Amino acid sequence: MSLAQEMFAIAPAMAKANLSASQLKLLTGKARWIFRVADAGFPTVPTIAITRAAWDELQAERGRKDKRLRTHWVACLFKLVDKDGVPPKLVVRTSASAHNGGLMPARIGIPAPDLPEDAVDPNRPLARAIKQAFESYGFSDRTWTGREEDRSRQIVLVQAMAGGDDEQFLTRNATTGALGPAPLDGSPLPRMPDSVNALIALLDAKAGRHMACLVSVEKGTLRFISARPVQATPGAELNAAVDRVDRKVWTPQSAVSRVDANRLALMLHPRLKSPEGVAPIAVGLGVSPGAATGIIVFNPEDAARLRARGQHCILVVNETGPADIEGMRAATGILTARGGMSSHAGVIARITGKPCVAGVRTLSVDAVEMVCRIGDREFRAGERLTIDGTDGSVYLGSLPLTQPQIGGSIGKLLGWSDASRSISVRTNVETVDSARTALSFGAEGIGLARSEHMFFSTERMVALRRMILSEDEDARSRALAGLVDYQTGDYSALFSAMKGLPVTVRLFDPPLHEFLPRTDEEIEETAASLGVAVRALRLRLERIAEINPMLGHRGVRLAITYPEILQMQMQAMLAGARAASETQNEPVIVEMMVPFVSTATEVSWVRERAMAIVENAGLSRSERVKFSFGTMIELPRACLRTGDIAHMVDFISFGTNDLTQTTFGISRDDAPAFLAAYQRKGVYERDPFVSLDVKGVGELIQIAIQRGRAANPKLKIGICGEHAGDPASLQFFSGLGVDYVSCSPYRVPVARLTLAQTST
Amino acid sequence: MSLAQEMFAIAPAMAKANLSASQLKLLTGKARWIFRVADAGFPTVPTIAITRAAWDELQAERGRKDKRLRTHWVACLFKLVDKDGVPPKLVVRTSASAHNGGLMPARIGIPAPDLPEDAVDPNRPLARAIKQAFESYGFSDRTWTGREEDRSRQIVLVQAMAGGDDEQFLTRNATTGALGPAPLDGSPLPRMPDSVNALIALLDAKAGRHMACLVSVEKGTLRFISARPVQATPGAELNAAVDRVDRKVWTPQSAVSRVDANRLALMLHPRLKSPEGVAPIAVGLGVSPGAATGIIVFNPEDAARLRARGQHCILVVNETGPADIEGMRAATGILTARGGMSSHAGVIARITGKPCVAGVRTLSVDAVEMVCRIGDREFRAGERLTIDGTDGSVYLGSLPLTQPQIGGSIGKLLGWSDASRSISVRTNVETVDSARTALSFGAEGIGLARSEHMFFSTERMVALRRMILSEDEDARSRALAGLVDYQTGDYSALFSAMKGLPVTVRLFDPPLHEFLPRTDEEIEETAASLGVAVRALRLRLERIAEINPMLGHRGVRLAITYPEILQMQMQAMLAGARAASETQNEPVIVEMMVPFVSTATEVSWVRERAMAIVENAGLSRSERVKFSFGTMIELPRACLRTGDIAHMVDFISFGTNDLTQTTFGISRDDAPAFLAAYQRKGVYERDPFVSLDVKGVGELIQIAIQRGRAANPKLKIGICGEHAGDPASLQFFSGLGVDYVSCSPYRVPVARLTLAQTST
Repeated sequence: MSLAQEMFAIAPAMAKANLSASQLKLLTGKARWIFRVADAGFPTVPTIAITRAAWDELQAERGRKDKRLRTHWVACLFKLVDKDGVPPKLVVRTSASAHNGGLMPARIGIPAPDLPEDAVDPNRPLARAIKQAFESYGFSDRTWTGREEDRSRQIVLVQAMAGGDDEQFLTRNATTGALGPAPLDGSPLPRMPDSVNALIALLDAKAGRHMACLVSVEKGTLRFISARPVQATPGAELNAAVDRVDRKVWTPQSAVSRVDANRLALMLHPRLKSPEGVAPIAVGLGVSPGAATGIIVFNPEDAARLRARGQHCILVVNETGPADIEGMRAATGILTARGGMSSHAGVIARITGKPCVAGVRTLSVDAVEMVCRIGDREFRAGERLTIDGTDGSVYLGSLPLTQPQIGGSIGKLLGWSDASRSISVRTNVETVDSARTALSFGAEGIGLARSEHMFFSTERMVALRRMILSEDEDARSRALAGLVDYQTGDYSALFSAMKGLPVTVRLFDPPLHEFLPRTDEEIEETAASLGVAVRALRLRLERIAEINPMLGHRGVRLAITYPEILQMQMQAMLAGARAASETQNEPVIVEMMVPFVSTATEVSWVRERAMAIVENAGLSRSERVKFSFGTMIELPRACLRTGDIAHMVDFISFGTNDLTQTTFGISRDDAPAFLAAYQRKGVYERDPFVSLDVKGVGELIQIAIQRGRAANPKLKIGICGEHAGDPASLQFFSGLGVDYVSCSPYRVPVARLTLAQTST
Repeated sequence: MSLAQEMFAIAPAMAKANLSASQLKLLTGKARWIFRVADAGFPTVPTIAITRAAWDELQAERGRKDKRLRTHWVACLFKLVDKDGVPPKLVVRTSASAHNGGLMPARIGIPAPDLPEDAVDPNRPLARAIKQAFESYGFSDRTWTGREEDRSRQIVLVQAMAGGDDEQFLTRNATTGALGPAPLDGSPLPRMPDSVNALIALLDAKAGRHMACLVSVEKGTLRFISARPVQATPGAELNAAVDRVDRKVWTPQSAVSRVDANRLALMLHPRLKSPEGVAPIAVGLGVSPGAATGIIVFNPEDAARLRARGQHCILVVNETGPADIEGMRAATGILTARGGMSSHAGVIARITGKPCVAGVRTLSVDAVEMVCRIGDREFRAGERLTIDGTDGSVYLGSLPLTQPQIGGSIGKLLGWSDASRSISVRTNVETVDSARTALSFGAEGIGLARSEHMFFSTERMVALRRMILSEDEDARSRALAGLVDYQTGDYSALFSAMKGLPVTVRLFDPPLHEFLPRTDEEIEETAASLGVAVRALRLRLERIAEINPMLGHRGVRLAITYPEILQMQMQAMLAGARAASETQNEPVIVEMMVPFVSTATEVSWVRERAMAIVENAGLSRSERVKFSFGTMIELPRACLRTGDIAHMVDFISFGTNDLTQTTFGISRDDAPAFLAAYQRKGVYERDPFVSLDVKGVGELIQIAIQRGRAANPKLKIGICGEHAGDPASLQFFSGLGVDYVSCSPYRVPVARLTLAQTST
């Protein structure tokens, strides 16, 4: 393409533009919509475009006293002149591919150049505006995408200035997604000619998203000036997508492929269960919707630390700034004393989908002393609050939350998704309540039930501690015996809730270290229950304490060193399965999973004993309880040796969190100390605990799948862990041909949508 | 081979045996030596052999009233009859391939069978003895090798009974290795015919090791009966090997290939530097040579724990048993109240090469209360003792030790080794003293100088703590500035000591967590030095403390988050190199190594800054200080991405300890809780921290080397870490074509020998 062709009319005053393929490629930003609307025959103000390369050459030509290109440019400007032959006043606009705060605002009312040289002379109004427009693209490090662009192909638009009144509106309502002109900034819209509806339908179909639209209305005639996409709420976007299918603008498949799964995730907020009877202790501005309850923290590091331990927290600060973004991502909710809808806290909370209450005037925070006051009350780190980002309420303590419902537009979209999805979506839950939530979100089974969560009650914890601190096998067995009955009931309820869907129970996994008594009170209680002296218990605790518990005495290592735990867990699980099978028509599908293995011998050791227990329970050939045996693959060595392991198991499931920790040598608990600096300094593009590291962890998973399938073609393969709810990671897993993924209940819809997108 | 051929004379009374290739293969154990001695023409008592398969079929034939095989057997027995035609009394001996406590002792004085049936009738003496001999092989799980053998090929020997006196002796002295008849059990040897020297020379050349020999001496005539190999001290074996070269029985190469590197390691014991002036507090039996100094521990778990942290300890117990073996391996020395040379403690200590003092009568241990008494003194865990396993002395506190010298036989053997070795051997040291020791052992450079060890003094620790606890970069820089001078001196001395050999300095690596003040006193001191309140410091310490420090804020993460540390370390290192270069002819070879990287971006981040510092110091093109830049590969992800890293570095060095920890997901510190059970239950064949796990960790290293070499053919590749001193691991590394290995000073000779063995 010659540079002469890089100055061209996209909406000529007379006739239609007839663009070459190369010219069409130059249409970024507003230029694209102006061309498309004009090309569809809708009245549009005349517009021409010029690239930076062409503009630079026009300038260079001036130095050489050449006029060849200038002649083209002047001819091009004449395309803005209507059939009346009167040169219009001009408007110069940028047309960047992404919104950018540093861009030059439109320059209006520029006189048409009198002489050809005025059209290129930077001291004259038109050329000056064009020059400044190009210069404003300079802040390339401030674009939202961060992508490096081909600067020479950047374009600037010159438009004829429309007469009449300029009007701005949205093509769809920003909150409901309903089609039709909607106010952009809250101020009511004037009545507009009916042709506005045709323009909106046209733009909505072409763009497939909410657009902010600029038109001129002159004597009942509406002319299109420009448009740019805007981000609506996730709900509005979703409703709009379903509406386009109803209007036959999109097929269901294109709706599925065009809804952003990350945005869908933002809709799945919990709400307060019954706020009616409870009085808030403060009210601020609800600047990001959803309710959150958690432990008070006063700085981003503590938020990250609690998040890493799976705990919910509310970040309480006077206001937030760029250094707090990581901590905001880590917090479950955000509460600020200052700021409003457009504050840093509000903007980031909405982007990250965190409930946020801002501008609570009765709140003051002393971050150094780690204390805050709300009205008369003083709160310290560790106390609990509940916030409702929908109405700005702040409540004392932890209020019960209710989960979002799948219905309406979400239900329709996910229904369409399921039709084009081949990988199952399961969920990671242990309780009947969470199982029901996950089922309502479309979970097709439980991919990870962390059996240790069944010990989280005072009574059971006492028995568990007695077991850990027993000096011999007999004492351990006695301590464990009391736990079988409790657990049997838990398993039976969980299996019943899942109504014949598969349930993967992971054997006791965490370091025993985590269950040791810590406070003086706990130690005294435990000593009494064991009948030993407090001092002796303290000595023993010191000896058991681990330096790196994540890599310590946990997972399969517990089953091998303390086979009584394996025995107790399997006994309870099988009794629970049998009980559930007697109250339902469907058989109970139990998948037992061994965690944290690194060698095939560990798997065979456990398998031999587990199968003997199943055999003894008379369930090895049962039609009512279908038992299968598998292992988690969550250590680099296990990935490399999956070929040895595969022939001994029915399934494997990748635990991508521990696999990321060991592959990178990063303890997620401790990562906050350097992760923020790593992202700030560009060492990590993305947090590898959020989006799977394809180049390292991903290769290990690929090796494991290839070796596992080669050794056992019937091997069922799953992914469990938080990555299974992350769209980017799901795309990678989908390409590996896994059989299922398993994520937290809230993420089930995200996985259903993403897996449908990746299989189309 | 027919079963008739599985009964045959190995030393017939008349003429020589003429064995088929299949029969030669059956000659295990003593049979082999009897055949070889007789075959060489030395007078030998007549001997025949029969396999279990042939014997079983002889028995089966009896049931069938068949005689075919019996005829063969009787003919075979006639081979024991001398030319005088008188059937001799018989001896039945086992001939197992490995010594086994359950084997039947020789049955002597068995009358020759009168009738052919008597030769196979288990109620008659000969057949009964043969039957019992085979039955005694039954304890196959008690063989030392643990290897499963082909039972049907097991053999039993029948010998003519020699007249005269039976005499036993060793072919070489068990302690010095000198050739000539030596007493087997301490009792003096009678005078023997001169022909004994010919027999000894013959056996020594054939067997190439110390042999216990049984002969008969009758009227000045010596006849060979049997022999079996015995284990001498490592020193005796080594002297014997060198002596065989001197006698031209072996070539130097065969001496190199036949000395067991694991046994060589046992000779490299430290000794007490100057025990003359110091009085022992107790004296027991020195049952395993060498001196050791360390912290008192009372149980194997604590020994393993301290060992994992790199600390020396003395295991103090009343006596040891099979359950303590892991702990004994972990201890630096062993001290027992009971037992002697043949006690469990003594035997295991000698096998594992640990100094051991046993039978200290004034010692009593209370393992439960964790306290011991030696005479009037009471000692608790954590106090220090020194023991000398050569003379049985026990000393108070830590006495200085001196390292073994390389000289005499070791020097000769290692000299021969170096001639056939292509991989360099370096050492892991930080101090000038250790560097000199390593040089005396033949180290060809330093492969790992852990720079953090230079902070291990009170003064520097205070500065380091001030740095860690600084709230901003300025304060950190000020705290660090004071450290540059100290370090410059350290580096200069270390470079000078190495006289132009390469020195790899690893950047500060350990988790800052490890340097935090812990005791109340330390905390108060630190608070004062920082000018903050003790309470505020405690809060801050709680926030900095790490849950899994091994995977926390350490290694390259420190350099990136606190670039001041990188700056300070490089400044000191370069100044030290410059100073050293001014006092010697050889240039200083500095290799800077970045620890704990997992991404190529980390490497490029540090490289850019490091190279700028080198450039600023004017050393980028220096002929006097040659600087190169490399990285440790010690995380699974780094192995997978070595291809990305290789083009940015001059060298890589595998840190096999951390790589084993992350590949297996095992914290070595915490492994003692399950490692003993794992080895007992057969889950691990070997401790992966002692011998490299070839199938997992090894594959990652292979992948890294292949990708690294493909990306940068000039890449220099090393191995550092304890595996580099382990013979089995060295064999694997040798096959990978690495350029150098680097191990602790003591292990340098082991590496030199092993690498010579693997390259021949």
